[in-house]
Amino acid sequence: MEREALLEYIRPRMPEKRYIHTIGVMETAISLAKKYGEDTKKAEIAAILHDLAKYEDEDAMRAIVRENGLDVRLLPWGSEILHGPIAAYRAEHELGIKDQDILNAMRYHTTGRAGMSRLEQIVYIADMIEPDRKYPGIELLRQTAEGDLQQAMRACIHHSISFLVTAELPIYPLSIECYNDYLGEEL
Amino acid sequence: MEREALLEYIRPRMPEKRYIHTIGVMETAISLAKKYGEDTKKAEIAAILHDLAKYEDEDAMRAIVRENGLDVRLLPWGSEILHGPIAAYRAEHELGIKDQDILNAMRYHTTGRAGMSRLEQIVYIADMIEPDRKYPGIELLRQTAEGDLQQAMRACIHHSISFLVTAELPIYPLSIECYNDYLGEEL
Repeated sequence: MEREALLEYIRPRMPEKRYIHTIGVMETAISLAKKYGEDTKKAEIAAILHDLAKYEDEDAMRAIVRENGLDVRLLPWGSEILHGPIAAYRAEHELGIKDQDILNAMRYHTTGRAGMSRLEQIVYIADMIEPDRKYPGIELLRQTAEGDLQQAMRACIHHSISFLVTAELPIYPLSIECYNDYLGEEL
Repeated sequence: MEREALLEYIRPRMPEKRYIHTIGVMETAISLAKKYGEDTKKAEIAAILHDLAKYEDEDAMRAIVRENGLDVRLLPWGSEILHGPIAAYRAEHELGIKDQDILNAMRYHTTGRAGMSRLEQIVYIADMIEPDRKYPGIELLRQTAEGDLQQAMRACIHHSISFLVTAELPIYPLSIECYNDYLGEEL
């Protein structure tokens, strides 16, 4: 699908601020894809669609999980964890996207996971460092993303886990598998 | 088994410093057991034996995991994670301890887990706050343990996870399940 059609699909599904964020993720993901030799069209599609379910009703998302055989470990979690997998589900079943790497980049854009593909890393990082984001430490993440994709992903997942622990917020198990994976040391 | 026999069993298996730590854990666990209505004899046994495998060879511990049907998810991990489950294995098979709550208190004393029993909490906390321990923040943990066992366990697992993330050390999945469990909020 072309960029304009994808943007038309997502625009009514989110407030203006989230749409501006999405454009930022798209531009950042394309830039990272060029830098690191990834398919820019795949990066564009995954980035535009990554937050399409962000504002859906949680119980409606849980119903999709239950009725369509998605990972049942999602069920106790809220929108923050549900919206990635639901976005991938809708992209596949409503937009006909079959590319598993694009779908996984959407599915894991919030949690990360162990063994992330290059495209998954790019969308995860782009979501954290796009120009509209503001939080302490983001400049270091942006600088790291200029130089080394693996190191940038390591820094991003470490930043995410640190934020959650400091805020005493729950941590999805896949995120710890991702964190352990990027430490790259003996356990 | 009586206290002296248990102490004789563990003493040759660890350096003096660890033995002193063990005595501290025993005394702290008995004190917490009295305060919170737990069986003090169970607390004594689990506390004395909790570190009996701390200095065993890692590959030998992995062989025990493989050959005796212990949780294979332990295999990639080092001594810090292996020594609790191996201690429980030896307590059951070499000392004939059959009480599952005692064995679980030993098994999970380093990692914690979701749904910990009162005895498991007591041994986990005692291991972190016994008088010989010194680290920033321990006084607050000791104070919390004076007032509320659940809150103390929550504070201890949060402290442990914070320490690991700050040090960029890997985190065993059961510890995150424990952390999420004690947050006691909707995920």
